[in-house]
Amino acid sequence: MDTHTEADERHLRLRADFDNFRRRAAKECESAQREGRRAALLPLLPVLDTLERALHAGSTDREFYDGVAATHRLFMAALREAGAVPVDTIGKPFDPNLHEAVAAVPADGTVAPGTVVREVQRGWRIGDELLRPAQVVVATAQEPADQWR
Amino acid sequence: MDTHTEADERHLRLRADFDNFRRRAAKECESAQREGRRAALLPLLPVLDTLERALHAGSTDREFYDGVAATHRLFMAALREAGAVPVDTIGKPFDPNLHEAVAAVPADGTVAPGTVVREVQRGWRIGDELLRPAQVVVATAQEPADQWR
Repeated sequence: MDTHTEADERHLRLRADFDNFRRRAAKECESAQREGRRAALLPLLPVLDTLERALHAGSTDREFYDGVAATHRLFMAALREAGAVPVDTIGKPFDPNLHEAVAAVPADGTVAPGTVVREVQRGWRIGDELLRPAQVVVATAQEPADQWR
Repeated sequence: MDTHTEADERHLRLRADFDNFRRRAAKECESAQREGRRAALLPLLPVLDTLERALHAGSTDREFYDGVAATHRLFMAALREAGAVPVDTIGKPFDPNLHEAVAAVPADGTVAPGTVVREVQRGWRIGDELLRPAQVVVATAQEPADQWR
């Protein structure tokens, strides 16, 4: 009888371990899938940045410029298709989980202090997970000290 | 004694199931990671194609063109960093696992029949796994029949 109980307990323990492992494995596979997407998309974001800088500079060759602008639209659509979504910035309250403040300007009265007023570099997320924070300029309550001198 | 043996057997069976599951789970997570990379990269390949078509057309604006050409080099490097590698084509024997023949031309004597002589669209792979086949033109042994008329 004693032996039987011990065997039963050992079996129950193994079954519990198995169940736990199963749950953990499902979660780990999910995060492996996300990790794969993340590793693939991260190096491509600076490519889009460079393309945008080229477009901002403008061109005297209208036809060529239009072709490159079409490529840019396709790039944005492809990133969305791959599951990446731009981080909301201008007009939103500064959120340290999504935004990286690279500068501050005094609020001009039209926006509340702590509001994002400019986007310096686009941020990207996949679902709730941040791929890269947005670099932003934030409105502050007080004028910078050196403006009072 | 009989009960003890049954319990032992049941336990051994569960342990074997657990071990099998563990092995399968490790493989599945690996393939989930690859699947994530694949899903992220596939929509981006046509973006690179479009950029290349724009560059092939050329431009009268040298400075703008150079900026876009730099973006193209960055794009190729980013895909490699993401784990994608172009499929070898020109001069290689046609391989149905990597190449999709979109046309055939008579071998001109400098290449063996069955050799890839032109790349129409670049193919991509991640390690041993094909992301997208290369579209190629293949040299054939015989002249097309209508050239004999």
